[in-house]
Amino acid sequence: MFAVTILGNNSAVPAFDRHPTSQVVTLDGTNYLVDCGEGTQIQLIKYKIRRGKISHIFISHLHGDHYFGLIGLLNSFGLLGHQQELHVYGPSPLKEIIELQLKVADTTLCYPLHIHHITEATTLVDTDKMSVKCFRTNHRIECYGFSFSEKKKLRKLDLEKAKQMEIPAVFYDRLKDGMDYVRKDGLVVKNEDVTLPGEPGKKYAFCADTKYDESLIPHIEGADMIYHETTYLDNLRERAESRFHSTTRQAATIAQKAGVKKLLIGHFSSKYDTLEEFEAEAREVFPNTELALEGVCYEV
Amino acid sequence: MFAVTILGNNSAVPAFDRHPTSQVVTLDGTNYLVDCGEGTQIQLIKYKIRRGKISHIFISHLHGDHYFGLIGLLNSFGLLGHQQELHVYGPSPLKEIIELQLKVADTTLCYPLHIHHITEATTLVDTDKMSVKCFRTNHRIECYGFSFSEKKKLRKLDLEKAKQMEIPAVFYDRLKDGMDYVRKDGLVVKNEDVTLPGEPGKKYAFCADTKYDESLIPHIEGADMIYHETTYLDNLRERAESRFHSTTRQAATIAQKAGVKKLLIGHFSSKYDTLEEFEAEAREVFPNTELALEGVCYEV
Repeated sequence: MFAVTILGNNSAVPAFDRHPTSQVVTLDGTNYLVDCGEGTQIQLIKYKIRRGKISHIFISHLHGDHYFGLIGLLNSFGLLGHQQELHVYGPSPLKEIIELQLKVADTTLCYPLHIHHITEATTLVDTDKMSVKCFRTNHRIECYGFSFSEKKKLRKLDLEKAKQMEIPAVFYDRLKDGMDYVRKDGLVVKNEDVTLPGEPGKKYAFCADTKYDESLIPHIEGADMIYHETTYLDNLRERAESRFHSTTRQAATIAQKAGVKKLLIGHFSSKYDTLEEFEAEAREVFPNTELALEGVCYEV
Repeated sequence: MFAVTILGNNSAVPAFDRHPTSQVVTLDGTNYLVDCGEGTQIQLIKYKIRRGKISHIFISHLHGDHYFGLIGLLNSFGLLGHQQELHVYGPSPLKEIIELQLKVADTTLCYPLHIHHITEATTLVDTDKMSVKCFRTNHRIECYGFSFSEKKKLRKLDLEKAKQMEIPAVFYDRLKDGMDYVRKDGLVVKNEDVTLPGEPGKKYAFCADTKYDESLIPHIEGADMIYHETTYLDNLRERAESRFHSTTRQAATIAQKAGVKKLLIGHFSSKYDTLEEFEAEAREVFPNTELALEGVCYEV
């Protein structure tokens, strides 16, 4: 399963039972945590997300509503006897902030913690099944979005045809990898004659905090789902601009121009007690928009 | 009203819907926040405590479950347009931690924030109506408890007698302050003949995290109510000792030896899903014990 579970969908100040930014990307059996606002560890308990399966945490930027819950989570992992390696990625000086707080508490974590500073758009994680890349967004302080891409799936074997062509079973995995088969009689069996194309890998992008900026598009183009902030409704476009945030229509316009399949919107300002208008305004521009609601799991 | 509202009663890791340490002491129309574990600002909203009335915050020590919520609360005060002065007291290097996090977020608070480092037992606040003192507790790192004392109330005027003795009304306030009155004919009216004693001021002490230590007693002696941690039941006395925490019977013994009127117990370990046994064990030693329950307001 490739899915995103929202833990917090509000902007700076918690309000109306909405919490600061955090979400869990589940991919290939691993939980990747994206941002970690205050109270994230409590949201993880509430929504029964297995903390032990979190191996990577990505922090977009050092505004408090995106990382004040990180030190508490790292600390709790230690108290709960977490043992596997944990990688945290975020802008400088995240490492110094965390290490200072561990030091003054005289805390030695019982698991290997690696805090990596992000300094530019790059690939952060790359396995044979998926990759995570980061890209700059346009915010008041240094800020990064993250894209999660499945690798293309293996080709599908056409078993009947493979047997007809007398290809031995031991070669089937290589067929799925796309190789041709050369028979003992010299005949070359073309891969595409005995296999079908694999499904393309899916892609999800988290666009963090940002003002409207089309330079994001190359990083999210064609994604199956993106999350884009909409701190304000469209009548507060000037306020959004001055605070380096986006409105409903701006988020939807980015989704439309990037040709993505689905848009999640979140990071709602605490000035709004209800969210229906966000959905309605965004859908006028990009119909396949959904509100990012806390506790809901959205399949990519 | 002089009262204590519990916002969090759990120890290190949040569990069973119990939160890390925080409580509000309400005295003379002001809210004093004591400790500020992660999520305190959300608990303040949940229990409808007026954040705007918080003028002082006291942090006992720099273990995360006692202060990880502070930076978020300070930040939210700024975003909510808080204007009055805010004083925060806690051990070093609390000021450096907070200032680093404000700096990296490029945050300038819109209210005057004063962070005072505590280095020894001393008086932190002293007004004509109350005082707050701090005292060392015996924990793994530098840690302080806090006592809140009302000043002795004014003497009560016996109006009939004052009239009989022909004391002018303009002198009544001085009578309440304890002064004698000298009449024009030279007669001295003794204060105690026309007034009744004022009620003694009440006292509440928060004993923070600590192992069993009778050196706390002079600081809390005779208090109307104290809060003492009981991280463990009494069968885990050795674990409590090694981790610089207390058990039920140890907390109750301190209350008994200090001759206090009422004991609140809290800071329960996450290994306990229910709390009845804490109450029962403590009451065997000190009957007037109550569990510190979240959202409950205990009058001093």
